[in-house]
Amino acid sequence: MSTFGSVFRVTTYGESHCKSVGCIVDGCPPGLELTEADIQPQLSRRRPGQSALSTPRNEKDQVQIQSGTEHGKTLGSPIGMMVMNQDHRPGDYSETDLYPRPSHADWTYMQKYGVKSASGGGRSSARETIGRVAAGAIAEKILKKANNVEIVAFVSSIGEVSMDRNPQDAKFQQLLNTITREEVDSVGPIRCPDPEVREQMVKVIEKYRDAKDSIGGVVTCVIRNCPVGLGEPCFDKLEATLAHAMMSLPATKGFEFGSGFAGTRIPGSKHNDPFYFSEEDQRLRTKTNNSGGVQGGISNGENIYFSVAFKSAATISQEQETSTYDGKDGVLAARGRHDPSVTPRAVPIVESMAALVLVDQLLIQKSREYGKSIVA
Amino acid sequence: MSTFGSVFRVTTYGESHCKSVGCIVDGCPPGLELTEADIQPQLSRRRPGQSALSTPRNEKDQVQIQSGTEHGKTLGSPIGMMVMNQDHRPGDYSETDLYPRPSHADWTYMQKYGVKSASGGGRSSARETIGRVAAGAIAEKILKKANNVEIVAFVSSIGEVSMDRNPQDAKFQQLLNTITREEVDSVGPIRCPDPEVREQMVKVIEKYRDAKDSIGGVVTCVIRNCPVGLGEPCFDKLEATLAHAMMSLPATKGFEFGSGFAGTRIPGSKHNDPFYFSEEDQRLRTKTNNSGGVQGGISNGENIYFSVAFKSAATISQEQETSTYDGKDGVLAARGRHDPSVTPRAVPIVESMAALVLVDQLLIQKSREYGKSIVA
Amino acid sequence: MSTFGSVFRVTTYGESHCKSVGCIVDGCPPGLELTEADIQPQLSRRRPGQSALSTPRNEKDQVQIQSGTEHGKTLGSPIGMMVMNQDHRPGDYSETDLYPRPSHADWTYMQKYGVKSASGGGRSSARETIGRVAAGAIAEKILKKANNVEIVAFVSSIGEVSMDRNPQDAKFQQLLNTITREEVDSVGPIRCPDPEVREQMVKVIEKYRDAKDSIGGVVTCVIRNCPVGLGEPCFDKLEATLAHAMMSLPATKGFEFGSGFAGTRIPGSKHNDPFYFSEEDQRLRTKTNNSGGVQGGISNGENIYFSVAFKSAATISQEQETSTYDGKDGVLAARGRHDPSVTPRAVPIVESMAALVLVDQLLIQKSREYGKSIVA
Amino acid sequence: MSTFGSVFRVTTYGESHCKSVGCIVDGCPPGLELTEADIQPQLSRRRPGQSALSTPRNEKDQVQIQSGTEHGKTLGSPIGMMVMNQDHRPGDYSETDLYPRPSHADWTYMQKYGVKSASGGGRSSARETIGRVAAGAIAEKILKKANNVEIVAFVSSIGEVSMDRNPQDAKFQQLLNTITREEVDSVGPIRCPDPEVREQMVKVIEKYRDAKDSIGGVVTCVIRNCPVGLGEPCFDKLEATLAHAMMSLPATKGFEFGSGFAGTRIPGSKHNDPFYFSEEDQRLRTKTNNSGGVQGGISNGENIYFSVAFKSAATISQEQETSTYDGKDGVLAARGRHDPSVTPRAVPIVESMAALVLVDQLLIQKSREYGKSIVA
Repeated sequence: MSTFGSVFRVTTYGESHCKSVGCIVDGCPPGLELTEADIQPQLSRRRPGQSALSTPRNEKDQVQIQSGTEHGKTLGSPIGMMVMNQDHRPGDYSETDLYPRPSHADWTYMQKYGVKSASGGGRSSARETIGRVAAGAIAEKILKKANNVEIVAFVSSIGEVSMDRNPQDAKFQQLLNTITREEVDSVGPIRCPDPEVREQMVKVIEKYRDAKDSIGGVVTCVIRNCPVGLGEPCFDKLEATLAHAMMSLPATKGFEFGSGFAGTRIPGSKHNDPFYFSEEDQRLRTKTNNSGGVQGGISNGENIYFSVAFKSAATISQEQETSTYDGKDGVLAARGRHDPSVTPRAVPIVESMAALVLVDQLLIQKSREYGKSIVA
Repeated sequence: MSTFGSVFRVTTYGESHCKSVGCIVDGCPPGLELTEADIQPQLSRRRPGQSALSTPRNEKDQVQIQSGTEHGKTLGSPIGMMVMNQDHRPGDYSETDLYPRPSHADWTYMQKYGVKSASGGGRSSARETIGRVAAGAIAEKILKKANNVEIVAFVSSIGEVSMDRNPQDAKFQQLLNTITREEVDSVGPIRCPDPEVREQMVKVIEKYRDAKDSIGGVVTCVIRNCPVGLGEPCFDKLEATLAHAMMSLPATKGFEFGSGFAGTRIPGSKHNDPFYFSEEDQRLRTKTNNSGGVQGGISNGENIYFSVAFKSAATISQEQETSTYDGKDGVLAARGRHDPSVTPRAVPIVESMAALVLVDQLLIQKSREYGKSIVA
Repeated sequence: MSTFGSVFRVTTYGESHCKSVGCIVDGCPPGLELTEADIQPQLSRRRPGQSALSTPRNEKDQVQIQSGTEHGKTLGSPIGMMVMNQDHRPGDYSETDLYPRPSHADWTYMQKYGVKSASGGGRSSARETIGRVAAGAIAEKILKKANNVEIVAFVSSIGEVSMDRNPQDAKFQQLLNTITREEVDSVGPIRCPDPEVREQMVKVIEKYRDAKDSIGGVVTCVIRNCPVGLGEPCFDKLEATLAHAMMSLPATKGFEFGSGFAGTRIPGSKHNDPFYFSEEDQRLRTKTNNSGGVQGGISNGENIYFSVAFKSAATISQEQETSTYDGKDGVLAARGRHDPSVTPRAVPIVESMAALVLVDQLLIQKSREYGKSIVA
Repeated sequence: MSTFGSVFRVTTYGESHCKSVGCIVDGCPPGLELTEADIQPQLSRRRPGQSALSTPRNEKDQVQIQSGTEHGKTLGSPIGMMVMNQDHRPGDYSETDLYPRPSHADWTYMQKYGVKSASGGGRSSARETIGRVAAGAIAEKILKKANNVEIVAFVSSIGEVSMDRNPQDAKFQQLLNTITREEVDSVGPIRCPDPEVREQMVKVIEKYRDAKDSIGGVVTCVIRNCPVGLGEPCFDKLEATLAHAMMSLPATKGFEFGSGFAGTRIPGSKHNDPFYFSEEDQRLRTKTNNSGGVQGGISNGENIYFSVAFKSAATISQEQETSTYDGKDGVLAARGRHDPSVTPRAVPIVESMAALVLVDQLLIQKSREYGKSIVA
């Protein structure tokens, strides 16, 4: 459904053609300095239209806080947030009255709900993620204060062009140690920190743009300074809730954590992360980090990192042979210009979902620590 | 925590060294014929010791139904199930008193809980999955009756040796259409249906066994005959709940759905699944199935398929340089013999989790359909 | 927290001094005709200012649907609703900067949250119930369509003046059979359907108004045409979820169901409701209804009825000896005029919460019935 | 369903005629000293057969811990607990094959589930509460350690015979301040601490026993030393979750909190609890406690007290005119001897549910306090 989280919880509403989209954030600690200025930056980062490579549609997504703050501080009560829908132009989608768009949610929504909305796929619209990003911005602020947690996502592959994200590659691990959000944004709309790879990605995207086609990609995300002990055993392991969060984003096809699929090919003797005593941290740490910062579903204080696969966008301007709702063969082409590569826009959304998972697990863990402290 | 599901719900208990492990299944429909004989087969399939290639430890996991049935039929009330722990031999693990085993949950459990259990990693033990499998067997029986749903998992890769699971490969899609659980089991303990690949897998496993090492692998799972319309939009998309379920299994490092990571490299024009009208089904179907049977988080009636990455087992008999709990460098080797490749044992566990996800979403969807029917 | 319900779910936001209050309704069936005109009537019924007996403060609570509908029909997606806050006049409450108001939530909120909001008690404000009532109006519409469910609440006592609500009283049971919302409203702002009792209630309220005091009361609610079989055994019995819902309303002090506290004094031989076969309904019914329409937590098709106790309003204009936040003795009197009896305003709120409980249990039960049907 | 609680959670299973009943307690802090000896006392207190006044059926309810502890300490993992069913004697109930027992759950269960269980009402059986009591015993132990929380319930009325529980009565408030569980038990099976009232209660029970009839009663419960700040605003107010918990017990018909229904008759000027500064506690306290220790849904540190109405037991030995399942008029009398007054047995069950509510709210609140501390 539209609610995510346990003690820190977001509930979202809205699709692309209604009055507004937004969310209610429940369980935010009181006393946090919070105004629209804290939320707007991530919302702006998810907007299309940042460059000639992406779609020129300019959505002005200005968030308005409705409740839960006074004098710029949170009250502990639910924070209602909304962003008006301004530029929906439903006419652009008129052919979808006849055709369910291939690999969109038009047909499954029609099957599930029996009604057709102007946006076709209703809640599978990318605009639904606005509420997630607004909530994630609050979560991030709390995590920053809690433990200086840093969450940075970037584009690690576009089509066949990929950075090396081998978990045993020192350069990759070093990147995870140091990459900042500023660096990711400074390199332009592709959001890939490797200059050589990025240059090739631009060419790939231009190729698909010119062919009226689209191409997918992978977003990799690192979480630094995550406290030790987050994650609930069994069903709510930290990587399980992260997987849930990421795979709930539109257009995702895969999730890998730490060593990921590559970890199936590295023998145990090399995959195991040996412990050593860190004088700096005054606790055990691991020499390698194939585990991705989590062991047995619980964070171990190393970098948490994972990658999310985004399929090639379903909306393309070239003609596609398909069928009408009532079963007649036909040809469909999306009108207007369309973003050939939406993966870079997913960067702040991935960060937001990561923050929502972490802040909930952090707050739960603090109740666990209290419980432990009083019975001892 | 230890509860999974919404209207069909399993709660598990137990770790490897306590009296028993088991679960409570809540929300099972009444009137279902159910005895231990329905549950035991999947439990037996997850047992180690089926062949010389895997560990000789023989756990006799006989399930006992405690409640929720009478005269061989379910009552609609919670079904308590338990399996006694018989063969724990805690002495085998005595060195873990000093050493947190690398890439096990020993250290993170100690950090989170502050107590050391005989099993080290407590609930991250593979024995915890017994309750899941017992519950999954019930879920499967319901799904079978509901729509003749078939869930079949198999090993698709071990280390570098892999079947071709390219979503656009006709042979692979054909395999997904036809593979049966009987076929998977008939080929021996590796559970890979491709004879040539399997032969190589045997060699790989023997190599790592002889080296006192371990190697990971991938389990691929197909769900056939899933009704159209399952999956809740936004946070509880069908693939998101499947991802959550799978990534909550011990030793998982990745999840891909439909085209998966390969789907990021296939351009939209080829990745989109065109619709056609199926005379047989009297509804739209898709010519290809890169979507993996789900669009916008909702099942479209095509095969649902996904793959789960299992890392190389952390328990190996060779010596590893690591550290004691209190920070002294040292060398640890697991005593006894250990399974070099646990991936094949994960096959019934993956099937069970898939069944638990589906039955819950199916029951929820039926309440949705009722709602739709009465307001129209 | 601020979310209620399982498959039909409302999440509310807002307090008395923020920009707006509202809610997100998730799980509403698609295809339901729904505009603001369906929601406004219950919102208007909860507004103060309907007569000289109650507070003259006129809140213009116009609801705006933000999402989830198109062309006057629901889409199946979350319905965002908001009501602007217009008339907050925070100055009226300025003395609360020094004094926690007795039996308000000012002090407990300060203890829990550590921040003082303009409204003092934050989410314990009566304005929070706007979101509940808006959601309840949708729930009612579904229930009406599902089974012609009728929910009618009325004031059954004010202070010492009380209608006879003895469960074994034929006149009372007859009233429950026939009372309509129109009748309740037609008798003026007191909302008590018994003319003699009502006349005395007016006098009681006038007495407390003149004394700058307040007086509580009881709201009784009947649900007619509830389908048989609603309610989940054990923790989510129908009466348990109703109790939860009602006791979550501001100022409630008690809940009784069916025979209620009187039922403790009626011997089993008279309290038991004997069965008989109803030719009209073609099923067993009960001759009496001490059970209040629920047996073993599950609805039996008889009238569901219950009563909710509302304490005397905490806000009174007369001086009260109390203490400042920092512990100095002092005297506090609320400025302005205050409603001496808020109980009548609770009538639509009680109805709304009842509807929210029922629609959720109805939808869940339909998934149960489906489950039962397929395994048989 | 059969799960209660959020971060401290109990899931129960079992009915009166199956192999065993029990529960899984999830979220218990690690390091708590816990053996069966901690749990058995409350289980024994809920057993029938303590005196000639109550039923002679002797259930030997010995709890066995299955998991979650080692060397007498909790591990932080789920605690499985079971109690064997020994003395079910299904023959005693054979006439229920034809007759749904009036005001039992036989008929509603048959309607909801379509199957008849040996126990008729399945999960509405009193034996279901065993799991609750076992879990409650753990919860109590944690609360004791956390804040020396004391929970004491007692019988305050049987039929028409009632203690004065007027909230403004000094003697009653004094009783709430001092009553201990030992005192409650020391006075015999009636569990009413007032000797004169108790004497009358004995007579009332004997009267109904001799008449082969039954009579209900009220259990009042006080919670002392509850920390300030527990309870989540809006839907999960402390009194709302307590009401939910209590009204989920078999045979309950009412719940009142603090001043309760009497609070509707006390004018605001007397009902409001004035603040004063307590030198002993170094914080504000209230001079009176009509609020029952909760304001705005949040505990204020005063005694929490509430009362629960239990109807007269439905099982009576005298003949009752009723109907068979298939609609034929007939006469039913329960075989064997039956307890004329089950209210006293509810005492430990009420305490257990109160403990389960509190420990969950306590652990959640600690995560709130942490959140508050880090953002400040």
